[in-house]
Amino acid sequence: MLSLLLFAAAPLQAAPPPSPADPIEADWRAIPDDELLVMTLANGRQVVIRLAAGMAPQHVGNVRTLARAHWWDGESVYRVQENWVAQWGDATEKKPLPAGVTDRPAAEFEIAAFRPAVRLAKADSYSTASGITADGWPVASNGRQAWLTHCYGMVGVARDALPSTGSGAELFTPIGQSARRLDRNYTVVGRIVEGMPYLSALPRSDAAMGMYATAAERTPIVSVRLASDMPAAERPHFQYRRADNPRFAAAVARREHPEAPMVSLGGAAVCDVLPGVRRAP
Amino acid sequence: MLSLLLFAAAPLQAAPPPSPADPIEADWRAIPDDELLVMTLANGRQVVIRLAAGMAPQHVGNVRTLARAHWWDGESVYRVQENWVAQWGDATEKKPLPAGVTDRPAAEFEIAAFRPAVRLAKADSYSTASGITADGWPVASNGRQAWLTHCYGMVGVARDALPSTGSGAELFTPIGQSARRLDRNYTVVGRIVEGMPYLSALPRSDAAMGMYATAAERTPIVSVRLASDMPAAERPHFQYRRADNPRFAAAVARREHPEAPMVSLGGAAVCDVLPGVRRAP
Repeated sequence: MLSLLLFAAAPLQAAPPPSPADPIEADWRAIPDDELLVMTLANGRQVVIRLAAGMAPQHVGNVRTLARAHWWDGESVYRVQENWVAQWGDATEKKPLPAGVTDRPAAEFEIAAFRPAVRLAKADSYSTASGITADGWPVASNGRQAWLTHCYGMVGVARDALPSTGSGAELFTPIGQSARRLDRNYTVVGRIVEGMPYLSALPRSDAAMGMYATAAERTPIVSVRLASDMPAAERPHFQYRRADNPRFAAAVARREHPEAPMVSLGGAAVCDVLPGVRRAP
Repeated sequence: MLSLLLFAAAPLQAAPPPSPADPIEADWRAIPDDELLVMTLANGRQVVIRLAAGMAPQHVGNVRTLARAHWWDGESVYRVQENWVAQWGDATEKKPLPAGVTDRPAAEFEIAAFRPAVRLAKADSYSTASGITADGWPVASNGRQAWLTHCYGMVGVARDALPSTGSGAELFTPIGQSARRLDRNYTVVGRIVEGMPYLSALPRSDAAMGMYATAAERTPIVSVRLASDMPAAERPHFQYRRADNPRFAAAVARREHPEAPMVSLGGAAVCDVLPGVRRAP
């Protein structure tokens, strides 16, 4: 149909170029059940988050403890700021944290080392180098420190003014342009792997900071559970695409060097090459 | 209120740092009425677009002709692709273009020269230089060509596979991460200055390319008018913030070098420093 040609993405070609998000059977890996957080909003809307377990262990530990304590049940998505973030947790900031949660964990804004499996060709405004790790995380570096990047759909830890004030109870995700200026300033704990539109398409608040002015505007959270703690029959299974192989490297290279007549500087932003994720078939 | 402190943006400080989007009285300039496109969707939702008149004259000319012919009345927003674009126009691709519209204008993917009033410190993945023009447009360069950048909220011309096949009848805007890989591949005709959530918060389509599978899902367009063609009593008036002054330069510099304890590489992406726009008071 001609209508498929009127699009704003890459031109239609006989064989579409490989994309980093493509499903490639050989390269799918299971996301472990205890690295998957399932947030059920009102009306059955599920947002599924892959936890960056090895990269922010204290905060991910807190998130797991909060989930096991059912702490988010009855809380809400209380902030949706246009071209910035959606944020959720306890809008009142009064609910006591459960036992076992480190109240003021040391900030985990950075990760131990910069070890991408596929490295991007160009520096960007926020990092001298960036890439995707073997297990599919977007990372960046300035030559000294390394960190997970605050791309659209990544999940960060909201905090007060001081770095060690984010426990993991309040989480946010960028819903507009990728929020790279938050890199190294907020801990990243994961990536939304399904259900992002349930956050990105929420009504925005025009009140300060995008906080909903009234409780009625908030989207209720019914429950948040680790997949490993859900009954087997209800437990979702997800996979990520492995990045340490020539197929993914080729997909990234194709994004940096698109086929003519598309032109490019020869670079792509790390947030534009996130590997595919899917529900396990 | 403590609740204001739990945020995911810059830490609360006694005096908030200047932002490129700040309203600074001395620097507001009127957007001429014939550079303002007012798209009214069903249920009174208005999306207002500032046209980049000098930078894509043929396509902006087509847009004006289409608006004057009331061509978009009864058409729709027919595509909403998660973390990509919303697109609108004639979903059937069958409606004849009105007289006076150049059917296949030469592509205007680039602009004549790279002349930012404020230039950003760092290169990015898509350009060796970028900045904001005196009259508030985001521009980038590779040292040879210059172009308007496909930021979140900018308006581009959808086209078929060949460069000169976009008339301006089908328009799109990035609704997720800024679509910089479209730079120099699609003509940019403007920037959404009000009503962006009416597009960015629309339900997404899971069908191919984010095209809605059924007509019922589309958001009807009631009318599209140039402000200059609207009755004076209905005509909206908008302003943009001028960029060729030390206040805007300081706001950009602050974004590149935030106050401690925020850290930065010393750069900011051009899409993150768009100057403020507002309805004229």
